[in-house]
Amino acid sequence: MIREMTESDFKQFWPCFEKVIQAKETYAFEPDMSSDEAYQLWCKTPIKAFVYEDNGEVLGTYYIKANAQGPSSHISNCGYMVSENTRGKGVARKLCEHSQLIAIEYGFKAMQFNSVVSTNEVAIRLWQKLGFNIIGTIPKAYQHATLGYVDSYIMFKHL
Amino acid sequence: MIREMTESDFKQFWPCFEKVIQAKETYAFEPDMSSDEAYQLWCKTPIKAFVYEDNGEVLGTYYIKANAQGPSSHISNCGYMVSENTRGKGVARKLCEHSQLIAIEYGFKAMQFNSVVSTNEVAIRLWQKLGFNIIGTIPKAYQHATLGYVDSYIMFKHL
Repeated sequence: MIREMTESDFKQFWPCFEKVIQAKETYAFEPDMSSDEAYQLWCKTPIKAFVYEDNGEVLGTYYIKANAQGPSSHISNCGYMVSENTRGKGVARKLCEHSQLIAIEYGFKAMQFNSVVSTNEVAIRLWQKLGFNIIGTIPKAYQHATLGYVDSYIMFKHL
Repeated sequence: MIREMTESDFKQFWPCFEKVIQAKETYAFEPDMSSDEAYQLWCKTPIKAFVYEDNGEVLGTYYIKANAQGPSSHISNCGYMVSENTRGKGVARKLCEHSQLIAIEYGFKAMQFNSVVSTNEVAIRLWQKLGFNIIGTIPKAYQHATLGYVDSYIMFKHL
Protein backbone atom coordinates (compact mmCIF):
# COMPACT_ATOMS: atom_id res chain seq x y z
CA MET A 1 0.00 0.00 0.00
CA ILE A 2 3.04 2.24 0.46
CA ARG A 3 5.11 2.54 -2.69
CA GLU A 4 7.24 5.02 -4.60
CA MET A 5 5.38 8.10 -5.88
CA THR A 6 5.11 8.55 -9.65
CA GLU A 7 4.53 11.82 -11.47
CA SER A 8 0.96 10.70 -12.18
CA ASP A 9 0.42 10.02 -8.42
CA PHE A 10 1.61 13.54 -7.73
CA LYS A 11 -0.84 14.98 -10.26
CA GLN A 12 -3.66 13.01 -8.66
CA PHE A 13 -2.65 14.24 -5.20
CA TRP A 14 -2.05 17.86 -6.27
CA PRO A 15 -5.52 19.20 -5.27
CA CYS A 16 -4.93 17.93 -1.70
CA PHE A 17 -1.39 19.32 -1.70
CA GLU A 18 -2.57 22.69 -2.94
CA LYS A 19 -5.29 22.83 -0.30
CA VAL A 20 -2.75 22.12 2.44
CA ILE A 21 -0.27 24.80 1.38
CA GLN A 22 -3.00 27.37 0.70
CA ALA A 23 -4.48 26.80 4.16
CA LYS A 24 -1.21 28.20 5.68
CA GLU A 25 -1.67 26.21 8.87
CA THR A 26 1.04 23.56 8.69
CA TYR A 27 3.53 23.87 5.84
CA ALA A 28 6.26 26.49 5.29
CA PHE A 29 5.84 26.27 1.51
CA GLU A 30 4.89 29.05 -0.92
CA PRO A 31 1.06 28.89 -0.83
CA ASP A 32 0.87 29.88 -4.51
CA MET A 33 3.45 27.53 -5.95
CA SER A 34 2.61 25.69 -9.14
CA SER A 35 2.08 21.96 -9.44
CA ASP A 36 5.41 21.70 -11.29
CA GLU A 37 7.30 23.54 -8.56
CA ALA A 38 5.66 21.39 -5.91
CA TYR A 39 6.52 18.21 -7.82
CA GLN A 40 10.14 19.35 -8.01
CA LEU A 41 10.22 20.16 -4.29
CA TRP A 42 8.46 17.01 -3.09
CA CYS A 43 9.66 14.35 -5.54
CA LYS A 44 12.81 15.50 -7.34
CA THR A 45 14.93 17.44 -4.79
CA PRO A 46 14.53 14.71 -2.12
CA ILE A 47 16.00 11.22 -2.48
CA LYS A 48 12.56 9.76 -2.99
CA ALA A 49 8.83 10.27 -2.34
CA PHE A 50 6.32 7.57 -1.40
CA VAL A 51 2.52 7.29 -1.46
CA TYR A 52 -0.01 5.51 0.66
CA GLU A 53 -2.43 4.12 -1.90
CA ASP A 54 -5.81 2.52 -1.28
CA ASN A 55 -7.83 1.16 -4.22
CA GLY A 56 -5.95 3.32 -6.69
CA GLU A 57 -6.43 6.44 -4.61
CA VAL A 58 -3.47 8.36 -3.16
CA LEU A 59 -4.41 9.08 0.46
CA GLY A 60 -1.09 10.41 1.64
CA THR A 61 2.54 10.93 0.74
CA TYR A 62 5.94 11.66 2.19
CA TYR A 63 9.39 12.58 0.94
CA ILE A 64 12.75 11.65 2.40
CA LYS A 65 16.04 13.51 2.06
CA ALA A 66 19.23 14.30 3.95
CA ASN A 67 18.71 17.26 6.27
CA ALA A 68 22.22 18.61 5.64
CA GLN A 69 25.39 17.68 3.81
CA GLY A 70 28.81 16.23 4.59
CA PRO A 71 29.46 15.92 8.34
CA SER A 72 25.70 16.18 9.06
CA SER A 73 24.46 13.95 6.25
CA HIS A 74 23.58 11.15 8.70
CA ILE A 75 20.40 13.04 9.67
CA SER A 76 17.36 12.56 7.46
CA ASN A 77 14.41 14.86 6.96
CA CYS A 78 10.88 13.92 5.91
CA GLY A 79 7.65 15.75 5.15
CA TYR A 80 4.23 14.09 5.29
CA MET A 81 0.93 15.06 3.79
CA VAL A 82 -2.43 13.31 4.09
CA SER A 83 -5.62 14.12 2.20
CA GLU A 84 -8.23 15.90 4.29
CA ASN A 85 -10.83 13.10 4.18
CA THR A 86 -8.33 10.54 5.37
CA ARG A 87 -7.17 12.21 8.57
CA GLY A 88 -7.50 10.30 11.84
CA LYS A 89 -7.27 6.94 10.08
CA GLY A 90 -3.65 6.21 10.89
CA VAL A 91 -2.24 7.03 7.46
CA ALA A 92 0.26 9.59 8.77
CA ARG A 93 1.43 7.11 11.41
CA LYS A 94 1.97 4.41 8.77
CA LEU A 95 3.83 6.83 6.52
CA CYS A 96 6.08 7.97 9.38
CA GLU A 97 6.82 4.39 10.48
CA HIS A 98 7.61 3.47 6.87
CA SER A 99 9.86 6.50 6.47
CA GLN A 100 11.92 5.52 9.53
CA LEU A 101 12.55 2.06 8.06
CA ILE A 102 13.52 3.61 4.73
CA ALA A 103 15.79 6.10 6.49
CA ILE A 104 17.58 3.25 8.27
CA GLU A 105 17.88 1.39 4.94
CA TYR A 106 19.57 4.46 3.46
CA GLY A 107 21.99 4.48 6.40
CA PHE A 108 20.61 7.53 8.21
CA LYS A 109 21.14 7.56 11.98
CA ALA A 110 18.49 10.10 12.93
CA MET A 111 15.48 12.05 11.62
CA GLN A 112 14.78 15.75 12.07
CA PHE A 113 11.71 17.89 11.36
CA ASN A 114 12.73 21.52 11.00
CA SER A 115 9.40 23.24 11.32
CA VAL A 116 6.45 21.64 13.08
CA VAL A 117 3.92 24.41 13.62
CA SER A 118 3.19 24.56 17.35
CA THR A 119 -0.56 24.78 16.81
CA ASN A 120 -0.58 21.54 14.78
CA GLU A 121 -1.26 19.55 17.95
CA VAL A 122 -2.44 16.36 16.23
CA ALA A 123 0.85 16.07 14.36
CA ILE A 124 2.98 16.92 17.41
CA ARG A 125 1.21 14.28 19.55
CA LEU A 126 1.67 11.70 16.80
CA TRP A 127 5.38 12.43 16.30
CA GLN A 128 5.89 12.27 20.08
CA LYS A 129 4.11 8.89 20.23
CA LEU A 130 6.46 7.71 17.50
CA GLY A 131 9.50 8.69 19.55
CA PHE A 132 10.30 12.21 18.34
CA ASN A 133 11.26 14.87 20.86
CA ILE A 134 10.97 18.63 20.64
CA ILE A 135 14.60 19.80 20.71
CA GLY A 136 14.00 23.46 19.96
CA THR A 137 11.38 26.18 19.62
CA ILE A 138 11.62 28.86 16.94
CA PRO A 139 9.75 31.88 18.26
CA LYS A 140 7.00 33.29 16.00
CA ALA A 141 8.39 31.23 13.14
CA TYR A 142 5.12 30.69 11.27
CA GLN A 143 2.57 33.21 10.05
CA HIS A 144 -0.58 31.13 10.54
CA ALA A 145 -3.57 32.03 8.33
CA THR A 146 -5.92 32.65 11.25
CA LEU A 147 -3.75 32.73 14.42
CA GLY A 148 -1.02 35.14 13.28
CA TYR A 149 2.61 34.47 14.22
CA VAL A 150 2.99 31.20 16.13
CA ASP A 151 6.06 29.21 17.23
CA SER A 152 7.46 26.25 15.35
CA TYR A 153 9.15 23.23 16.90
CA ILE A 154 12.20 21.34 15.77
CA MET A 155 11.64 17.63 16.41
CA PHE A 156 14.23 14.88 16.39
CA LYS A 157 14.59 11.13 16.80
CA HIS A 158 17.62 8.82 16.88
CA LEU A 159 16.87 5.85 14.62
CA MET B 1 34.92 47.22 2.32
CA ILE B 2 31.84 44.99 2.35
CA ARG B 3 30.31 44.63 -1.11
CA GLU B 4 28.50 42.09 -3.26
CA MET B 5 30.53 38.98 -4.17
CA THR B 6 31.40 38.45 -7.82
CA GLU B 7 32.26 35.14 -9.46
CA SER B 8 35.88 36.25 -9.61
CA ASP B 9 35.83 37.01 -5.83
CA PHE B 10 34.53 33.52 -5.26
CA LYS B 11 37.35 32.01 -7.32
CA GLN B 12 39.89 34.03 -5.33
CA PHE B 13 38.33 32.88 -2.04
CA TRP B 14 37.89 29.22 -3.10
CA PRO B 15 41.17 27.92 -1.53
CA CYS B 16 40.00 29.26 1.86
CA PHE B 17 36.51 27.89 1.31
CA GLU B 18 37.86 24.48 0.35
CA LYS B 19 40.12 24.40 3.41
CA VAL B 20 37.15 25.17 5.68
CA ILE B 21 34.89 22.45 4.29
CA GLN B 22 37.68 19.88 4.11
CA ALA B 23 38.57 20.53 7.76
CA LYS B 24 35.11 19.18 8.77
CA GLU B 25 35.04 21.23 11.93
CA THR B 26 32.42 23.88 11.27
CA TYR B 27 30.41 23.49 8.06
CA ALA B 28 27.80 20.86 7.12
CA PHE B 29 28.82 20.99 3.46
CA GLU B 30 30.15 18.15 1.30
CA PRO B 31 33.91 18.32 1.98
CA ASP B 32 34.69 17.23 -1.58
CA MET B 33 32.39 19.57 -3.47
CA SER B 34 33.75 21.33 -6.53
CA SER B 35 34.33 25.05 -6.83
CA ASP B 36 31.34 25.25 -9.20
CA GLU B 37 29.02 23.47 -6.77
CA ALA B 38 30.22 25.69 -3.94
CA TYR B 39 29.69 28.83 -6.03
CA GLN B 40 26.14 27.66 -6.77
CA LEU B 41 25.46 26.96 -3.11
CA TRP B 42 27.02 30.15 -1.72
CA CYS B 43 26.23 32.75 -4.39
CA LYS B 44 23.41 31.54 -6.64
CA THR B 45 20.91 29.67 -4.44
CA PRO B 46 20.87 32.45 -1.80
CA ILE B 47 19.49 35.92 -2.48
CA LYS B 48 22.98 37.38 -2.44
CA ALA B 49 26.54 36.89 -1.18
CA PHE B 50 28.88 39.61 0.10
CA VAL B 51 32.63 39.90 0.64
CA TYR B 52 34.80 41.73 3.09
CA GLU B 53 37.60 43.07 0.95
CA ASP B 54 40.83 44.68 2.06
CA ASN B 55 43.33 45.98 -0.54
CA GLY B 56 41.86 43.76 -3.24
CA GLU B 57 41.98 40.67 -1.03
CA VAL B 58 38.82 38.80 -0.04
CA LEU B 59 39.16 38.17 3.70
CA GLY B 60 35.68 36.86 4.37
CA THR B 61 32.24 36.30 2.90
CA TYR B 62 28.64 35.61 3.80
CA TYR B 63 25.45 34.67 2.01
CA ILE B 64 21.89 35.62 2.89
CA LYS B 65 18.71 33.76 2.06
CA ALA B 66 15.25 32.99 3.42
CA ASN B 67 15.38 30.08 5.85
CA ALA B 68 12.02 28.72 4.69
CA GLN B 69 9.18 29.60 2.35
CA GLY B 70 5.69 31.07 2.52
CA PRO B 71 4.45 31.45 6.11
CA SER B 72 8.03 31.23 7.43
CA SER B 73 9.71 33.38 4.82
CA HIS B 74 10.19 36.23 7.31
CA ILE B 75 13.16 34.40 8.83
CA SER B 76 16.54 34.82 7.14
CA ASN B 77 19.51 32.52 7.18
CA CYS B 78 23.17 33.43 6.70
CA GLY B 79 26.46 31.59 6.54
CA TYR B 80 29.83 33.26 7.19
CA MET B 81 33.35 32.25 6.26
CA VAL B 82 36.60 34.02 7.06
CA SER B 83 40.07 33.17 5.75
CA GLU B 84 42.30 31.43 8.28
CA ASN B 85 44.88 34.22 8.53
CA THR B 86 42.22 36.82 9.23
CA ARG B 87 40.57 35.23 12.25
CA GLY B 88 40.37 37.19 15.46
CA LYS B 89 40.43 40.52 13.61
CA GLY B 90 36.71 41.27 13.81
CA VAL B 91 35.88 40.38 10.21
CA ALA B 92 33.19 37.84 11.18
CA ARG B 93 31.62 40.38 13.51
CA LYS B 94 31.53 43.02 10.76
CA LEU B 95 30.05 40.54 8.29
CA CYS B 96 27.36 39.48 10.77
CA GLU B 97 26.46 43.07 11.66
CA HIS B 98 26.26 43.90 7.94
CA SER B 99 24.09 40.85 7.25
CA GLN B 100 21.59 41.91 9.90
CA LEU B 101 21.21 45.33 8.28
CA ILE B 102 20.78 43.72 4.87
CA ALA B 103 18.24 41.25 6.30
CA ILE B 104 16.20 44.14 7.70
CA GLU B 105 16.46 45.93 4.32
CA TYR B 106 15.01 42.82 2.65
CA GLY B 107 12.14 42.86 5.15
CA PHE B 108 13.22 39.86 7.23
CA LYS B 109 12.08 39.90 10.86
CA ALA B 110 14.54 37.39 12.30
CA MET B 111 17.70 35.43 11.55
CA GLN B 112 18.32 31.75 12.19
CA PHE B 113 21.46 29.60 12.04
CA ASN B 114 20.50 25.94 11.59
CA SER B 115 23.74 24.24 12.48
CA VAL B 116 26.36 25.89 14.67
CA VAL B 117 28.76 23.13 15.68
CA SER B 118 28.86 23.07 19.49
CA THR B 119 32.68 22.83 19.56
CA ASN B 120 33.00 26.03 17.49
CA GLU B 121 33.18 28.09 20.67
CA VAL B 122 34.62 31.24 19.11
CA ALA B 123 31.68 31.48 16.72
CA ILE B 124 29.10 30.71 19.41
CA ARG B 125 30.49 33.37 21.73
CA LEU B 126 30.48 35.91 18.89
CA TRP B 127 26.91 35.16 17.82
CA GLN B 128 25.79 35.42 21.46
CA LYS B 129 27.55 38.80 21.82
CA LEU B 130 25.67 39.90 18.70
CA GLY B 131 22.33 38.96 20.24
CA PHE B 132 21.73 35.43 19.00
CA ASN B 133 20.36 32.82 21.41
CA ILE B 134 20.68 29.05 21.33
CA ILE B 135 17.09 27.89 20.82
CA GLY B 136 17.80 24.20 20.27
CA THR B 137 20.43 21.49 20.43
CA ILE B 138 20.62 18.76 17.80
CA PRO B 139 22.25 15.76 19.48
CA LYS B 140 25.32 14.31 17.72
CA ALA B 141 24.41 16.29 14.64
CA TYR B 142 27.93 16.79 13.31
CA GLN B 143 30.66 14.27 12.59
CA HIS B 144 33.70 16.35 13.53
CA ALA B 145 36.99 15.42 11.86
CA THR B 146 38.83 14.87 15.13
CA LEU B 147 36.18 14.85 17.89
CA GLY B 148 33.66 12.41 16.38
CA TYR B 149 29.94 13.09 16.71
CA VAL B 150 29.26 16.40 18.46
CA ASP B 151 26.06 18.42 19.00
CA SER B 152 24.98 21.33 16.84
CA TYR B 153 23.07 24.37 18.03
CA ILE B 154 20.24 26.24 16.37
CA MET B 155 20.70 29.95 17.01
CA PHE B 156 18.16 32.71 16.50
CA LYS B 157 17.75 36.48 16.76
CA HIS B 158 14.75 38.77 16.29
CA LEU B 159 15.86 41.70 14.13
